[in-house]
Amino acid sequence: MSDKKNSNEMWGGRFASGPAAIMEEINASIGFDQKLYAQDIRGSLAHAAMLAKTGIIAADDHDKIAKGLNTILSEIESGKFVFSRKLEDIHMNVESRLAELIGAPAGRLHTARSRNDQVAVDFRLWVKEEFQRTATALKMLIEAFLKRAEEHAATLMPGFTHLQTAQPVTFGHHCMAYVEMFGRDLSRVKDAIERMDESPLGAAALAGTGFPIDRHMTAKELGFREPTRNSLDSVSDRDYALEFLSMAAIAATHLSRLAEEIVIWSTPQFGFVRLSDSFSTGSSIMPQKKNPDAAELVRAKTGRITGSLVGLLTVMKGLPLTYSKDMQEDKEAVFDAAETLELALAAMTGMVGDMTINTAAMKKAAGSGYSTATDLADWLVRELGLPFREAHHVTGRAVALAEEKKSELGRLTLDDLKGIHPGITEAVFGYLTVDKSVRSRKSYGGTAPEQVRKQIRFWQKRITKS
Amino acid sequence: MSDKKNSNEMWGGRFASGPAAIMEEINASIGFDQKLYAQDIRGSLAHAAMLAKTGIIAADDHDKIAKGLNTILSEIESGKFVFSRKLEDIHMNVESRLAELIGAPAGRLHTARSRNDQVAVDFRLWVKEEFQRTATALKMLIEAFLKRAEEHAATLMPGFTHLQTAQPVTFGHHCMAYVEMFGRDLSRVKDAIERMDESPLGAAALAGTGFPIDRHMTAKELGFREPTRNSLDSVSDRDYALEFLSMAAIAATHLSRLAEEIVIWSTPQFGFVRLSDSFSTGSSIMPQKKNPDAAELVRAKTGRITGSLVGLLTVMKGLPLTYSKDMQEDKEAVFDAAETLELALAAMTGMVGDMTINTAAMKKAAGSGYSTATDLADWLVRELGLPFREAHHVTGRAVALAEEKKSELGRLTLDDLKGIHPGITEAVFGYLTVDKSVRSRKSYGGTAPEQVRKQIRFWQKRITKS
Amino acid sequence: MSDKKNSNEMWGGRFASGPAAIMEEINASIGFDQKLYAQDIRGSLAHAAMLAKTGIIAADDHDKIAKGLNTILSEIESGKFVFSRKLEDIHMNVESRLAELIGAPAGRLHTARSRNDQVAVDFRLWVKEEFQRTATALKMLIEAFLKRAEEHAATLMPGFTHLQTAQPVTFGHHCMAYVEMFGRDLSRVKDAIERMDESPLGAAALAGTGFPIDRHMTAKELGFREPTRNSLDSVSDRDYALEFLSMAAIAATHLSRLAEEIVIWSTPQFGFVRLSDSFSTGSSIMPQKKNPDAAELVRAKTGRITGSLVGLLTVMKGLPLTYSKDMQEDKEAVFDAAETLELALAAMTGMVGDMTINTAAMKKAAGSGYSTATDLADWLVRELGLPFREAHHVTGRAVALAEEKKSELGRLTLDDLKGIHPGITEAVFGYLTVDKSVRSRKSYGGTAPEQVRKQIRFWQKRITKS
Amino acid sequence: MSDKKNSNEMWGGRFASGPAAIMEEINASIGFDQKLYAQDIRGSLAHAAMLAKTGIIAADDHDKIAKGLNTILSEIESGKFVFSRKLEDIHMNVESRLAELIGAPAGRLHTARSRNDQVAVDFRLWVKEEFQRTATALKMLIEAFLKRAEEHAATLMPGFTHLQTAQPVTFGHHCMAYVEMFGRDLSRVKDAIERMDESPLGAAALAGTGFPIDRHMTAKELGFREPTRNSLDSVSDRDYALEFLSMAAIAATHLSRLAEEIVIWSTPQFGFVRLSDSFSTGSSIMPQKKNPDAAELVRAKTGRITGSLVGLLTVMKGLPLTYSKDMQEDKEAVFDAAETLELALAAMTGMVGDMTINTAAMKKAAGSGYSTATDLADWLVRELGLPFREAHHVTGRAVALAEEKKSELGRLTLDDLKGIHPGITEAVFGYLTVDKSVRSRKSYGGTAPEQVRKQIRFWQKRITKS
Repeated sequence: MSDKKNSNEMWGGRFASGPAAIMEEINASIGFDQKLYAQDIRGSLAHAAMLAKTGIIAADDHDKIAKGLNTILSEIESGKFVFSRKLEDIHMNVESRLAELIGAPAGRLHTARSRNDQVAVDFRLWVKEEFQRTATALKMLIEAFLKRAEEHAATLMPGFTHLQTAQPVTFGHHCMAYVEMFGRDLSRVKDAIERMDESPLGAAALAGTGFPIDRHMTAKELGFREPTRNSLDSVSDRDYALEFLSMAAIAATHLSRLAEEIVIWSTPQFGFVRLSDSFSTGSSIMPQKKNPDAAELVRAKTGRITGSLVGLLTVMKGLPLTYSKDMQEDKEAVFDAAETLELALAAMTGMVGDMTINTAAMKKAAGSGYSTATDLADWLVRELGLPFREAHHVTGRAVALAEEKKSELGRLTLDDLKGIHPGITEAVFGYLTVDKSVRSRKSYGGTAPEQVRKQIRFWQKRITKS
Repeated sequence: MSDKKNSNEMWGGRFASGPAAIMEEINASIGFDQKLYAQDIRGSLAHAAMLAKTGIIAADDHDKIAKGLNTILSEIESGKFVFSRKLEDIHMNVESRLAELIGAPAGRLHTARSRNDQVAVDFRLWVKEEFQRTATALKMLIEAFLKRAEEHAATLMPGFTHLQTAQPVTFGHHCMAYVEMFGRDLSRVKDAIERMDESPLGAAALAGTGFPIDRHMTAKELGFREPTRNSLDSVSDRDYALEFLSMAAIAATHLSRLAEEIVIWSTPQFGFVRLSDSFSTGSSIMPQKKNPDAAELVRAKTGRITGSLVGLLTVMKGLPLTYSKDMQEDKEAVFDAAETLELALAAMTGMVGDMTINTAAMKKAAGSGYSTATDLADWLVRELGLPFREAHHVTGRAVALAEEKKSELGRLTLDDLKGIHPGITEAVFGYLTVDKSVRSRKSYGGTAPEQVRKQIRFWQKRITKS
Repeated sequence: MSDKKNSNEMWGGRFASGPAAIMEEINASIGFDQKLYAQDIRGSLAHAAMLAKTGIIAADDHDKIAKGLNTILSEIESGKFVFSRKLEDIHMNVESRLAELIGAPAGRLHTARSRNDQVAVDFRLWVKEEFQRTATALKMLIEAFLKRAEEHAATLMPGFTHLQTAQPVTFGHHCMAYVEMFGRDLSRVKDAIERMDESPLGAAALAGTGFPIDRHMTAKELGFREPTRNSLDSVSDRDYALEFLSMAAIAATHLSRLAEEIVIWSTPQFGFVRLSDSFSTGSSIMPQKKNPDAAELVRAKTGRITGSLVGLLTVMKGLPLTYSKDMQEDKEAVFDAAETLELALAAMTGMVGDMTINTAAMKKAAGSGYSTATDLADWLVRELGLPFREAHHVTGRAVALAEEKKSELGRLTLDDLKGIHPGITEAVFGYLTVDKSVRSRKSYGGTAPEQVRKQIRFWQKRITKS
Repeated sequence: MSDKKNSNEMWGGRFASGPAAIMEEINASIGFDQKLYAQDIRGSLAHAAMLAKTGIIAADDHDKIAKGLNTILSEIESGKFVFSRKLEDIHMNVESRLAELIGAPAGRLHTARSRNDQVAVDFRLWVKEEFQRTATALKMLIEAFLKRAEEHAATLMPGFTHLQTAQPVTFGHHCMAYVEMFGRDLSRVKDAIERMDESPLGAAALAGTGFPIDRHMTAKELGFREPTRNSLDSVSDRDYALEFLSMAAIAATHLSRLAEEIVIWSTPQFGFVRLSDSFSTGSSIMPQKKNPDAAELVRAKTGRITGSLVGLLTVMKGLPLTYSKDMQEDKEAVFDAAETLELALAAMTGMVGDMTINTAAMKKAAGSGYSTATDLADWLVRELGLPFREAHHVTGRAVALAEEKKSELGRLTLDDLKGIHPGITEAVFGYLTVDKSVRSRKSYGGTAPEQVRKQIRFWQKRITKS
């Protein structure tokens, strides 16, 4: 192995130039951390301003540094900047270019700072902004649901347990269940931002510094609530990344449940919804066929995000303090999960917004399967004073009779019902239709349209305020 | 397969009695959900009281029900209750016993309620209480660290990056890094409690009910802030379980980092700490050997908890609303993770509290490896006005010379140093000792003992208040 | 913390007796490793026989040891043995009882052996046997499918992509797809057994021993192919456990796909199958309702098994050689996954074997959705020589016309078809029925019943031989 | 949402053009599946040759198709081909270009074939080749270890359990433990290739085809052992991808254990090895510092690979047959894991090959910690006939005495030892040195250099043959 002249043969292919090529490939992060250029430059600008304010560097040096950094920002944003893998990462790429642009003063920017706290501040800024973008995307999805819920506050559909028809509900009520789920995701995002809103800048290599820096000033400048309290933790903490991934994994689970419903509802057997052409694909040979591709892909993305979460949890397991190079694996995991979640939320917002609801098919399915059996039982309890368990058995006999007669419950005759329990009266028929069943469920949070509308108003206000 | 007489041969062993045995084994949850007995009975008591208050059942029935439920509670707590697997779950076990005890009125307890919302309320109550127990355990660990941090606010040790000596820090400062980590875990616990503090009771099967129930009353009775807002979501939501597992996985990662440090620090090569006999095992043949078993086991538990998180995320992926039997898998995952986390926190609290710190070994290691090289560079910047990058190179040459002379940096002569940079003066030696280095790092959050003590006071107050 | 008298208050509850209670709870493995009693005793019997054969111990001591061990085996199997948590694990529980039973000679059993290689040999034996049990369970499931496939080799059903009807297939063909999947699982089991079929006994603590032991003899005695080749690896290897879990996770994924199909097929909307009463639950109030609980539970178990795999991968990550106490976490992960997989396989074998197939509903669905459109396109290519892509477009127009006329493809008139492409003849109608479509797909592995039967015969032979 | 004119405002940023942009981003796979271009073209060439051979298309059309496909191959390999995202995937990109190049005959290539089996055959070919590349990379790593093992077959080092010195071993023996591990990985790779070596081509959409295709011919042409046996399984199977990921996760676990050892051994406290400059990074300020970056990164990659495995297991969970769009997520997971594993193996091969072994430090550590205590105990058993447990206690007293005298075991006087057990003779000192201890452990697979060399020869032969 130590015989360098044979390295070509040894390594072959991708690694033909031997150890150097391997090390560059495994070690360099510029391929992905260039995504942090804006955060890196903002961090440097804040640090330089603070160094000048506290007299650690001269005002004149600060001016040159700031000008140089802004030039680099423009170069990157206009696509003129050439990133170099030899310079390993975004920090060294920017620093090296700054030296080219302004010479000696560039060397003063790194006073009282280390690459370790640059890494920490850049990534934390990025994750914070990504949390904010996620909040916006969640709100858009919630709004799409609120709109459909309003349209369909009274649209009948079967409520399922075990994917079997249980009791009738409204499609608006079903939409509002998702509003609750994505509302919790939004709440998790906000708590996470609050928790990670601390600036690590000034932790230096790991121990703080003897220079009279002002960490409260840089924290404020960068939009953080306050500086972190422990320099060792500042460079070794990746909780904010793990919390982003946890939040994303839970949100993705919600998306996958909805996606599964869309896939099932789009089958000819269910026929409850039809995705727009934008979110499905056809077949040139079977023009009637619409594959719910977008829903399937959203469902699948759960795996990818859960995978990223497991990946980073595994990376962080058992790492001694403070910084270990292992932690460089944090970025791709979070970048990929973030991009995936944004895309899945956007796709779902689109699908929910423009899918066609087949209200006739939903209503028909809502009325099948003796879905009002519970209403009969409840009537027996309420009106005849039967204990619930006894009412249950009476109802069971009524359903069995209906099944035998291939009839719906509400189509049994009064005599039929009296044969089962003599106390039953004509009044019971007012409770055995799907529509009546739904309207009756007025308990707080229940499916009665008035309840559904109440919760829509609650969420409209909450989202507007948030 | 349908030929029942051969089922013995077919299934063999565990499943000798055929399909019935298999179904009972896969379906019955009483083996683990009996853990929810207290929550189930509290939920029923609250429901019954509300039914009486709202006039849905008679006061007299309520009295009997309440008395019966309290009897069952005593029976279970005294170990006299016989759980039956035929009755599947805790709800049916309690209900069936109630019927034995009080007869007909037992049948009225289930009015306006379904097993689905019982499942939801029982488990949510349990998880909320477990979050509270976790908060207490986290506080105990934080307190153990605060105590050690106080003792060792000025104890020198090497600060590591890449497990290589980087700069000297204090052991107290290192302890406080863990306080920050477990403090964030505590904060996550509190946010999670706040978010899940809603009562699902009254969602009924999935659609709410037509009975005039008072969900705010039961919510209050059970100690929840308010009732949930959507009945479908109420029976299908397991976010609180996923959030418990996410929190636990992140906390376990913190524990694993600390455990890894204890394992490495306990080697003869490091010799920084010595676990007490309580938390290590010896060998009858090698009495000097102390294996850090407890730390290794805590490190390993991360895997178990991450596994439970992945398990439940996978279970919930793609489940259509509302309740599917898949969700029965939530309990064992959470129970196991909860028990594991409690145990790992207790073990770590014990280890941190009573391990012996070898301050001499720590100090010696802190001073090796030219750990004050950065202090020299900082001095050159501060006193001689060198740009940081140039100061870096001068320092590099000084370290190289020291290495050549097999000396420490602070043992080089003034002439040695002047040979490298003529501007260096006698004053520099005041900055090249480990002790001086640590004392100088007074930036906010830095390792200077005064800063460490300041953060100890901050956390003592915060923990007392919380 | 070191103040023992306050430990009660400190730890409270579960850990009231302080550090000792915590350590016992985290450290003792007897709670789960007692499952290995038979393997532990077999390992000791083999070791003792070898020690006697090689003259390391006297024949007389061997006799006493063997007799004592067999006594212990009887005691455990008859439930008389009292396991002690103070003695930590199965090895010490057995050893200690042996000393009680036979006195001094018990002390000779441990010659040239260490607890580390006992752990290794016991668990490896258990996992090997579990692989064998899994092979049997997989074969039973395959046989259940073969039986259904034979019954239904020609039963028409829709073939799905994206859960949309694509082309008609037979239910037997669908069954045989699962035979291929579980057949691969079986093949993985066999490869894994082959790979792990090496005896670690004789690795001693980690370095081998100076005693003239005969590892080939003990390997043979224990049914292993040969002894392992490296003593360090022997005590630190857990690949066989990871490979068991990987195999189980993939098999569980197959089970989850089948379970999902059963859940969807059991909806009133699909109505393709009806689970037997053994594997579903009803509702006393809705006697017509059959919840596919067993299928849902099998689907959910995937999460649990994947969780165990992730758990052990995480545990093993970054462990230095050789034995670390972390590895004690291997057992519960594997035990739980093994039990879960056995149960899920048994439940699925039961469901597949006795579910009712609604052939009418399947056939009706197979004929809807223009499922023979590809057959028309193929006919155009074959008989009229159209390039495939052009044939595709002609077919698209035919389907569009059928849709417009609310007709099936085969019910269009010849004039209708000639209007779309003048070359079409009466003969085409022979290809547009579902039955004809299925019979035509005779390519190797295709859905034509003759092909399906061919593959059934292939698998019947393979399973019989295996 | 359906109001298209506002889509810009609605979606903003990345998705400014509304649903179409989202759908293109989530749906198009050409961004990653272009990696399959060679496999796609090989599959088409084989299919076209078979169509001509069986007379399904004309020889002349075949010639044009083959020429066109080869032209496309050249265009792609020379970088001239322009991939289009509108054409979604590699299959449509190639097909569309073929139509441009050769016109009508291009339309005949798709006869008796569907995109579904193209997807299946392309990816399976790629994964098979990646398995083969992995085998080569594993062999190179094994060879690197064999070389170091030969050099160091007799180099003393401490054998660790719990990261505590247990007994002395040789570094060569330690290297050979890794040879066993990576040898098992290699064996898993080979079994997996064998299992997946079946051609899915000819499954068509999912049901096979009525054209008289010859699947055995295409299987042979593509280098597969035989065609798959079930068309539904052929398009829905992703076991080979899951098995690749499982194998990779286990191999990555092995790499992480080795990486952890390198990180710990590189600390100044251990000082056992020194990575070459190629695989570590320095610090301009601390030239003596060498961070083991490459080892840390290899350790971290375990997380990434485990994440990909979890990701695909999650994707596949609960997918009904046959193809669902979810399965498009298979590629990026496998591509990333494959690239990561190749890189990690290459980096580790490099590190193992050129790291410097500090034999003095290893030997010194091997002799500390009473590492020959077991040898004393074994001597007592062997020479004095003490039962092992008694020998254990005698040894314990000897170690305690040595500790008290701050001496090594071998430096105690004969009187010291006789004081502990009168039977001890001068001869015992021949067994208490590290060197003697290692040489004595000649049991099969033990650490005696002769045993180590025997296993080196075994593996040299096995690797050469494989």
